[in-house]
Amino acid sequence: MEARVAMAVPTEKSEVLAATKTPTTLSSDSIINVARGDPALYEPYWKKQGDRCKLVTLGDELMSYFSNAVNLCWFLMPELDRAIRELHHVVGNAEVDDRFIIVGNGSTQVFHALLYALSSSGEHVPVNVVAAAPFYSSYPEETEFLQSGLYKWAGDANCFDKDGAYIEVVTSPNNPDGSIRGTVVNREGGKSIHDLAYYWPQYTPITHKANHDVMLFTFSKATGHAGSRIGWAIVLDKTIASKMVKFVEVSSIGVSKESQLRAATILGVISNDCQNPELEEENFFKYGRHLMSDRWEKLREAVMKCNGALSLPEYPQGYCRFTGKYTDSYPAFAWLKCKEGLKCEELLKDKCKIMTRGGTSFGVEETYTRVSMLSSDAEFNLMLERLSAIKGTIHGN
Amino acid sequence: MEARVAMAVPTEKSEVLAATKTPTTLSSDSIINVARGDPALYEPYWKKQGDRCKLVTLGDELMSYFSNAVNLCWFLMPELDRAIRELHHVVGNAEVDDRFIIVGNGSTQVFHALLYALSSSGEHVPVNVVAAAPFYSSYPEETEFLQSGLYKWAGDANCFDKDGAYIEVVTSPNNPDGSIRGTVVNREGGKSIHDLAYYWPQYTPITHKANHDVMLFTFSKATGHAGSRIGWAIVLDKTIASKMVKFVEVSSIGVSKESQLRAATILGVISNDCQNPELEEENFFKYGRHLMSDRWEKLREAVMKCNGALSLPEYPQGYCRFTGKYTDSYPAFAWLKCKEGLKCEELLKDKCKIMTRGGTSFGVEETYTRVSMLSSDAEFNLMLERLSAIKGTIHGN
Repeated sequence: MEARVAMAVPTEKSEVLAATKTPTTLSSDSIINVARGDPALYEPYWKKQGDRCKLVTLGDELMSYFSNAVNLCWFLMPELDRAIRELHHVVGNAEVDDRFIIVGNGSTQVFHALLYALSSSGEHVPVNVVAAAPFYSSYPEETEFLQSGLYKWAGDANCFDKDGAYIEVVTSPNNPDGSIRGTVVNREGGKSIHDLAYYWPQYTPITHKANHDVMLFTFSKATGHAGSRIGWAIVLDKTIASKMVKFVEVSSIGVSKESQLRAATILGVISNDCQNPELEEENFFKYGRHLMSDRWEKLREAVMKCNGALSLPEYPQGYCRFTGKYTDSYPAFAWLKCKEGLKCEELLKDKCKIMTRGGTSFGVEETYTRVSMLSSDAEFNLMLERLSAIKGTIHGN
Repeated sequence: MEARVAMAVPTEKSEVLAATKTPTTLSSDSIINVARGDPALYEPYWKKQGDRCKLVTLGDELMSYFSNAVNLCWFLMPELDRAIRELHHVVGNAEVDDRFIIVGNGSTQVFHALLYALSSSGEHVPVNVVAAAPFYSSYPEETEFLQSGLYKWAGDANCFDKDGAYIEVVTSPNNPDGSIRGTVVNREGGKSIHDLAYYWPQYTPITHKANHDVMLFTFSKATGHAGSRIGWAIVLDKTIASKMVKFVEVSSIGVSKESQLRAATILGVISNDCQNPELEEENFFKYGRHLMSDRWEKLREAVMKCNGALSLPEYPQGYCRFTGKYTDSYPAFAWLKCKEGLKCEELLKDKCKIMTRGGTSFGVEETYTRVSMLSSDAEFNLMLERLSAIKGTIHGN
């Protein structure tokens, strides 16, 4: 789940957002848009892989609605089912045995399917949906926009004091702030959705095999293939899984087979490389981890130069079962904080022409803003340059 | 829109439906499932095209969320935008100039986007959604399943007598019965969605260039590529188009780029062939029309043999601007009627092991049932055999 395109108010804002995408050719004057998390940084890796991930489709292939008529999730391609299970086995980040895999058009659709599946119990009161602030900025809108009678957004889980059924969304590592999280409400009648979009070795140590009842992953953040719109849930309970299948049926009658096959191919290449000792140094996660570590080092240096105008969270080390080492966290987003009294999103926009997503979108103060760490090299380097120079700008204000 | 998988009640029914898909190897004992409209009949045509529709995708392609950042519909690939407009120009079935193309995960998602766009006007009463019976069986469930406060299903448009805003869904040629339709309510405050999924030359004469404010099409029924989940709307009004974009953003952050490129390739091949006089006899629509005409002739023969036990609608001829001839209608579904007092779906299931979708799903009597005309040759021929023999079975009852 995530780094979804900033959600637009109807009509004009979509266009504004689209038009403010970072231009292809950057100059010292260019607007840099790191408000979204378009994962451009992985592109050079995949380019280097050449034909290894090539997919060829002929005109008469993939024509039926059905992918696997005897499977509960009849629109899930068996190739993708196998590739997802194998990758989780290899990485050790989530329990997949004896569980259902439900695929969706991005983890966004899977999230909607989960809201439906966890709330359609026949009661006539909408179930409260909560997440601890700072929470992923799209959860409120995704929950509210159709004014469903099944569920409604109830805000910060830390302040939730209503009785009755509820759904707590737990993102870990968290978007926007990279923290490792568990449920905070912990009351009877509660259900939880564990959004593990960033629980991959390039972002965080894999300290344990997650085994929640409902876990959410996305191709976009695992490998950088956002354009394919492939997300999946790992689900323990058959009734929940069946309701999710129904949701995807009624909302889109399944999921692009072309995307599913491509995801299967790419996830398969990653799994193979991780299991081949000769390719160990070149596997995708090692490469990604190296990239992210390098970027975080540079960002921390740039922030240091600001002399207290900006700050970043610190993360504890953890033992990563995938790499077999104690490793640091390198979140996909940087959660920048300004000096008290300043509005961080506004400041970066006005002084640096850097578009970010401010704290209020995530349910917290405007002193915070979220910055994507997944931009292209050119954008990232220009961003560093401007951030390093911010101190003078603020003082001159 | 259409021939969607029959919508399942949560939990067990999905599996039942999946399990009753027509088996790959048919025997005289096999269940034939023509309740859905999986368009298997076009597969041999696309197989014959060999490499002409081949699509090759490398690992580093199509990675960004964005397809065209400066377009209102930022997730629509320019290649698909062009291919859709060109095909409509070539066929002459819909006005596309000075209109927006909005793509979705199947026309099902586009239909949801339209409900949202046409109802989210800020009023606090759900807008009534109606369609003249017999109407497409999934409209009620698609409108109801999230219990939205924005819109609600209000049944048969012919009986609609409520005041205030409403949305009328008009499918033409109609699913299930193949009739040519217009709006029936025609009151102030009404909006309409024109679902033209079957307004293609293989199914019906193209008598005019449709120019409604909102028109819906789907790759599945135009060319048979149901697995790609590509649908599109042609929209006149910018505010409506923008709201639809927002819907697709919030529900799935766009549409598979792999599927979009593949659809662009295949639609492009069709357009080219239609414009090439040397290939005229081999263009997809000529081929499809020949296939459908052949099947309808055989079906009418089989029904004749039933001696009144079953009957089919008759359709008027029309002048087709695409072929330049007076042509007949060959709908994608046959709307079978039994002798009064008999339940057609039940009869075909019990006596012929043919699974169809009965009249009550479409808001009418059980004497009717809908039969897909798009099954594979093997299924279709076995179906004919069993239908031809039904007379004896009923009399022996």
